[in-house]
Amino acid sequence: MAREARYARVRRIVGLTRRLTAAPGRLYSLAELAEETGAARSTVSEDVALIDEVLRETGLGAVATVTGAAGGVRWLDTVSPARARELAQGMIMELSDPERIIQGGFLYMTDVIFSPFWAERIGAVFATRFLPLAPDMVLTMETKGIPLALATARALGLPLAVARRESRVTEGPSISVNVVTSSGRIGAMSLPRRAIPAGSRVLIVDDFMKGGSTVRGLEDLCRELGATAIGCASLCETPVERQHKVGEYFSILRLDAVDESRRVVDLSPAESFTRYLEEAGSDA
Amino acid sequence: MAREARYARVRRIVGLTRRLTAAPGRLYSLAELAEETGAARSTVSEDVALIDEVLRETGLGAVATVTGAAGGVRWLDTVSPARARELAQGMIMELSDPERIIQGGFLYMTDVIFSPFWAERIGAVFATRFLPLAPDMVLTMETKGIPLALATARALGLPLAVARRESRVTEGPSISVNVVTSSGRIGAMSLPRRAIPAGSRVLIVDDFMKGGSTVRGLEDLCRELGATAIGCASLCETPVERQHKVGEYFSILRLDAVDESRRVVDLSPAESFTRYLEEAGSDA
Repeated sequence: MAREARYARVRRIVGLTRRLTAAPGRLYSLAELAEETGAARSTVSEDVALIDEVLRETGLGAVATVTGAAGGVRWLDTVSPARARELAQGMIMELSDPERIIQGGFLYMTDVIFSPFWAERIGAVFATRFLPLAPDMVLTMETKGIPLALATARALGLPLAVARRESRVTEGPSISVNVVTSSGRIGAMSLPRRAIPAGSRVLIVDDFMKGGSTVRGLEDLCRELGATAIGCASLCETPVERQHKVGEYFSILRLDAVDESRRVVDLSPAESFTRYLEEAGSDA
Repeated sequence: MAREARYARVRRIVGLTRRLTAAPGRLYSLAELAEETGAARSTVSEDVALIDEVLRETGLGAVATVTGAAGGVRWLDTVSPARARELAQGMIMELSDPERIIQGGFLYMTDVIFSPFWAERIGAVFATRFLPLAPDMVLTMETKGIPLALATARALGLPLAVARRESRVTEGPSISVNVVTSSGRIGAMSLPRRAIPAGSRVLIVDDFMKGGSTVRGLEDLCRELGATAIGCASLCETPVERQHKVGEYFSILRLDAVDESRRVVDLSPAESFTRYLEEAGSDA
């Protein structure tokens, strides 16, 4: 009997762990979880506290408790500073491979950006960094920003909007803005009107940050729709002086040079990333 | 003492559940898990069996055991037929909202396709359907196919390649093909040479399937790179006679009509989806 009860608890906790972690950001009331598991609310509450404790220790997320009548618990797919640092080191090792150097002084990063494995981990770092600013929407520009932006939105349980180069007849009324890139090219950026509700707090996510024209265009789109860009996260920045910064700016990596003749990639943690780790106390 | 030991087991199992489910497709050896948790291999093996049992019961994935010297266990983010059916019903309800009708007889689906919540669930259904065909790569066409393709790749632990309308100088040598769409327009599709290794078994994923020209283009790209398209998954198909089918074809929804004057959306489960549920035994 005691043995059976013990198994019942283990089984319930496995189910709860899976359920919470499968839907980051979703608020579950204790009543809902109690009904699903057939346990008392107080029991479920203890179970959730234990899950939270174990996962915080391993640096793999946390369960947030929302108090009040409409309260409950929800899983946030955050990462500890120590894991964020590990991720940056792993990416630098992966991306510094001379085989990635492409004629013209470019670095092939597409497979990493489109990899579900890396995208999910990068998104969790962005989510952890910007959670205190309480964004309620993630916005990116097609194409390579999408996996990182989707992973960030997933970790925070938020919707995602994607700006495109052209407006589409299949998406209804849209807003378009023109941007001038650092290479002097003029490009359009377009978003369906209904993609971002007025008043939204928007986190901009992109893969690569050069002069900042894409971010400026995305910020313009937000403004036209009555929303506010609260910050900008990018995987990799160049050392170019940014013409434009939006809210709080965060980048994980900094690409200084791709030396084709010596076959060397000069990639390091970005300054905003190092500062974030210091402030968050990465010795933990 | 007994109490402490019991908690130790619960804590270990919470950590294992999180670790396995956070990295779908990744093979963990029992030795590795034993070292991380500080438990004996036989104990970890029992824990994993229990996790598998509980999650299969809830229809939220399964732990696959790979035998042999290079063996171990890995999490697969699959869904039960009952949950797949629920998903299709939920999507039909969500997408049939007359507010989604756009002038010209279109249906606004972008927010659903870009939603991490829906994308992840759709990806898990595609993954479950195509797991028996052992794909080792997922391929899609920019832009709206990306979230669904990324979610499918994530659930199977596979890399993702994304074809684009233009080749990019930053991505090195690429393959391009031309396609003629059902509306008679000629378009280009391009993929970096290194995106798909020769010999790959490629699962094609897209959001919407009309005449099949996109799928034909993606299949051509695979062929040029020495890879094989083993099948094609799309969220929604139209009743148009497909000009081209690749390997096994699977769609979840079928959009028959968007009636602007009566404000009615005629959306139903696709035939290939219904057949799949029947074969998989959705009464479970």
